This record gives sequence, structure tokens and C-alpha cells, in this order.
Amino acid sequence: MHELRKDYIFDRWVIVNTERAKRPQDFMRQHPKISEGNACPFCPGSEHITPPEITRVEEKGRWVLRCFPNRFPAVSLEENPALKTSKDGFFTSCGAFGKHEVIVETPVHGEQFSDLGVERIAQWLRLVAGRVAELRKMKGIGYAAVFKNHGLEAGTSLSHEHTQIIAYNKVPGNVARECEAIAKYRRKRGKCPYCEIVSLERKGPRLIAENSGFVAFTPYASIFEFEAGIFSKRHINGFSEIKEKEFPELAGLLKMLLSRLGELDAPYNVYFHEAPRGCVQHFHVKIVPRFITWGGFEHCTGCVINTVSPEQAAEFYRGK
Amino acid sequence: MHELRKDYIFDRWVIVNTERAKRPQDFMRQHPKISEGNACPFCPGSEHITPPEITRVEEKGRWVLRCFPNRFPAVSLEENPALKTSKDGFFTSCGAFGKHEVIVETPVHGEQFSDLGVERIAQWLRLVAGRVAELRKMKGIGYAAVFKNHGLEAGTSLSHEHTQIIAYNKVPGNVARECEAIAKYRRKRGKCPYCEIVSLERKGPRLIAENSGFVAFTPYASIFEFEAGIFSKRHINGFSEIKEKEFPELAGLLKMLLSRLGELDAPYNVYFHEAPRGCVQHFHVKIVPRFITWGGFEHCTGCVINTVSPEQAAEFYRGK
Repeated sequence: MHELRKDYIFDRWVIVNTERAKRPQDFMRQHPKISEGNACPFCPGSEHITPPEITRVEEKGRWVLRCFPNRFPAVSLEENPALKTSKDGFFTSCGAFGKHEVIVETPVHGEQFSDLGVERIAQWLRLVAGRVAELRKMKGIGYAAVFKNHGLEAGTSLSHEHTQIIAYNKVPGNVARECEAIAKYRRKRGKCPYCEIVSLERKGPRLIAENSGFVAFTPYASIFEFEAGIFSKRHINGFSEIKEKEFPELAGLLKMLLSRLGELDAPYNVYFHEAPRGCVQHFHVKIVPRFITWGGFEHCTGCVINTVSPEQAAEFYRGK
Repeated sequence: MHELRKDYIFDRWVIVNTERAKRPQDFMRQHPKISEGNACPFCPGSEHITPPEITRVEEKGRWVLRCFPNRFPAVSLEENPALKTSKDGFFTSCGAFGKHEVIVETPVHGEQFSDLGVERIAQWLRLVAGRVAELRKMKGIGYAAVFKNHGLEAGTSLSHEHTQIIAYNKVPGNVARECEAIAKYRRKRGKCPYCEIVSLERKGPRLIAENSGFVAFTPYASIFEFEAGIFSKRHINGFSEIKEKEFPELAGLLKMLLSRLGELDAPYNVYFHEAPRGCVQHFHVKIVPRFITWGGFEHCTGCVINTVSPEQAAEFYRGK
């Protein structure tokens, strides 16, 4: 079952995916472990274990980046995306329709993403942009969510560095709300708020670094310790508007930030926000370290307690 | 610093609390550990370590429940709650004003909350209700968030069972949005949506158990594996409307659900939603087990992947 269900009264959706059915006993507190070594499905030599390859980037005759469908997808092209609502209106669902892909970022097991060269990271960005363009063209797809989980506390169980893309039949709530807030501001002021924010943060205490295409800073109301954002300087809506010479620029800032986090052996997520079809966004990347586990207060209220000020976090990233 | 900051463009707030200032090196991945044994500040004999006691419940001349201010509060009565906004409108903040209290739930280190008797859990509920009433009376308080973190993966670092209350100068976003959705439904249909949902879920496959005052079920679009809710059958707004005979009823359902989770040694949070002043809510308790760590997809999109269907979860709680 790959089902999207809507909350009784909110516009909040959940993917109920019971394909890897577990019994309650399987949840017994076994401190989760990162799978290691011999049988890694992402290592060279295991290509036959993965679903058929979609694309690869080669260097000297061997792959360095490799993209294929997720073996345990959260969404499926077999599902029916038609919406069903009960007569009382409280039970709304549809199939979780879409594609779930994996991009392995290095053939070397144990190599850290932040240790890859800037040019390799740029190649990775080009590959991601290509997959997103392809997936967005598919009928019925609302958004292609690109994300990376690094480390156990960031939600991964495979240590071999990889990215995932889930393209599905919804515009994600977080993205939709952001686009609405941008549209609202533009109606009032005639400008993109993130364009304004970027020019303010470039001059402020939360600036980390910048180059001609992008600027990295720690957001004023960060909800993660050491959260950072990389925003395009030009107003661009998404991957498809990145210019060829800008890929290494974005890659350079990503490498800088993730290298700093690497010094702390930090678990982290990376994800991208771009515009769904017909919406306006200001393309950006978020880097969210996962040092602290949210507790009951965060889940009760939706208000997070951040124990590091964004100004301190920016200082850390800037180094010296 | 106890500061509330608003996101650039959303109505999303974060408490920036750098009172326990840490250097970046302090975040080096040391897999966090639950503090154990000798120097537990919540054990009998350590009463002098905690800030001055607010109240206690005694049995046979010794305390069994004990309430005192949190030694490392997330909010403070010293902060100025007045709102400050920059001229451009992007930087909004105020002091994180309020009180942060702790309730120790047993004198016995290592005793599990779910092993307490129903009458003790009822006493705990009465104590919580009393503290919430007191804190809500304070000028400048918008909400008193009551929550419990059990286990490392649920955000606690102290294994001695305890509850926390953070009363502060905001209505939490999650609570505000819920009240708005309830008000919207009432304007349209003249009824509380949760009253309707409770009567539907009582007859459905997600029912866990009920008694004369309360009903426990797994919400249709649960965002946590094995999430459960306990809703009052009568429409009541919050703690202050619970009748004396209903405390043991609520306690009984809580004990049943948490005992089942105890069999899996599950980390979990418990929290309460009630109405802020002037709003309508339908009082309920949420039990959210914390088996799975959210990754980049969840934080990117706001859409969660739940690997256990609520129907399977209800079956687990019902047992045979």
C-alpha cells in the first residue's frame, strides 16, 4: 500500500507505506545501526542488485555517479492518484503516485560527500537537475523532492553516500506555504521577499560566504542548530534556470559548509526548494544538521527550541 | 538569552535559548547518553539540588509527585515580552517570557510511568491540571504546553520519569491552527469536528478502547508509527473542565496505551492540546512513539512517511 491520507481537519498529508510490512515486535528498541561493509548495495560490483539503472556519469571508464529506482519506493506508478473523500468529509485519501529514485554519489564506500571535489559535486548537481526536469515532465507529478540524509540521526540506514528524489502527485505543504507567502508579499510590495532577505543577510552577522551566483547564511529564525541556507542571488525559480557556470559555484559553497560540519562528524540533511509548476519560488538549498532530537514540546507546539543562535552558527561556518 | 524569533515570511516561531552556551566542539557526535544513577537530580535526597519546590503529593509521609522550576528553563520571567520588528518587516522577535516547570512522577529511579497505578496517574493528572490553571492565570501567558519525553529518541537525557510544562507568551502554532480549523468547521456546520470524528472513530477499525469519559483511537492520518490519541467524549475545552471522576478514566486509558508501548521498550512523547483563552478546542492527549527518525524528505516537504497503517497500530494496542 502506498497511500496519501489527509488529516481530519488540516491540509496535512502523510504517505502510509506498508510495503515493507513489519510486525510490532520489529520495532523493539534495537538501537538502529548503519549497515556496513560487505553487502553494500551501492558499491561497485553490486550493480545487479539495484533496479535497472536510469543514468550514470563515468570517469575513465567506470561510474562515479549512478542513478536508479529505489528498491523500496515510498510512492509508486501503480497507484491510482484519484482523490477519494468520505461523505462526512473527514477521510480523504489517494494513491501515493510517483517515482522514487536514488543517486549514489561516489563509488567509494566510506568516502564523505564533503570530500568529493567541487567539480564532482557540480556533476552531481547537473545530474540532479536533469532528473528533476525529467520527473517534472511526467503527467500527474506535483513536485520532485530532492534530499540527502547523512548519518543515522539524519534518518539514513545506509552509510554509502547517496541522494534520493521522491517525485509525487502533490505539492508538499512546506513548499506550497512558502510559495503562498512569497506570492502574498509580491502582491503587496511588488518584489520577491527572498530577494530582499538575501540582500539584507549579505550585509549582516549571519553571512557565511558568497560568490557571484550564490550566498550562504544562517537564517534569522533557524529551527535547527547550525542550520544554513544557500540562496541564488538572481531570482530563479528552480534547477532549470541555473546557468552552466553556476553549478560549480553552488557546489563550492555546499562543499565549504558540509566540510565544516564534517569536522564535527555531524549528521545532516540537505534539501532543495524550487517552484512547483505555475508558482513563484526563490531557489534555495537548506543544510540542516541533526544534533538535537525534538521532544514533546516541539511536537505539541510546533515551536522549536534552538540552543545555538544563528549568529554563533555563522561564526562557526566562517571559521577563524 | 531567551528569545522568540519569527521566521522571515511565515508565522513560525523558534525559541533561541543559548543559556547553556555550548561551543561547536560540544556538538561533536558523541552518541548521547541517558544519565544514570548516583547523581540523579530527581531522586529523593537530591531535593536540595532542584530549585525551590512548588508543590508535592505525599503518601505515608514521603513525596510521590514533586513539582519545581526547571533548572535550565527555555523561557524566563526576566524577559521582556514586547514585540520588536525591523523596519523592513523581516526580523521580528520578543523575549521568550514565561515559566518552565518539572514534575517528577515517582520517587523510584528506574520505575516506568506505565507501571504506576491508575490512582497515581490520576493524581499526576490532577497535579498537572492544577499547575496549568495556575500558570494560565499569569499575566502575559498565552499557553501552557504540557509534555513528557520518555527515552533518548524522544528527546530526554534524564531517565528518571518526569513531565515538563512550558508556559509562555504565545499561542503555539500547532494549537492555533487546530483552533482555527475547528472554528472554521463550526461556522460552516454548527458542530465541533472532533465531536463528529470521535463518534465516527468509536465505530471504526482504529478504535483502541473507551470508557464513559474518554475514547482512544489511532488517528486516520497519523504522522508517527503507532501514534494514538485519547479524546474526551464530552466536548470540553481543557483541563479545567475535567470532572473529578474522569481523572481515573483518563489515567486508565493512558496506562493501557503506555503499557503496550512499554512491551516494545518504545521511546515516546505524551502531550496535551487544550483551548487557549478565548478559543474553542476539544481536549485531547497525543501519544507519539518515536521509532523512526525523520529525514530530509520530511523536513523538505512537511509530508511524513508512516510505515505502519493506523489500522495495524490499533490492532497492536487492542492486543487480543
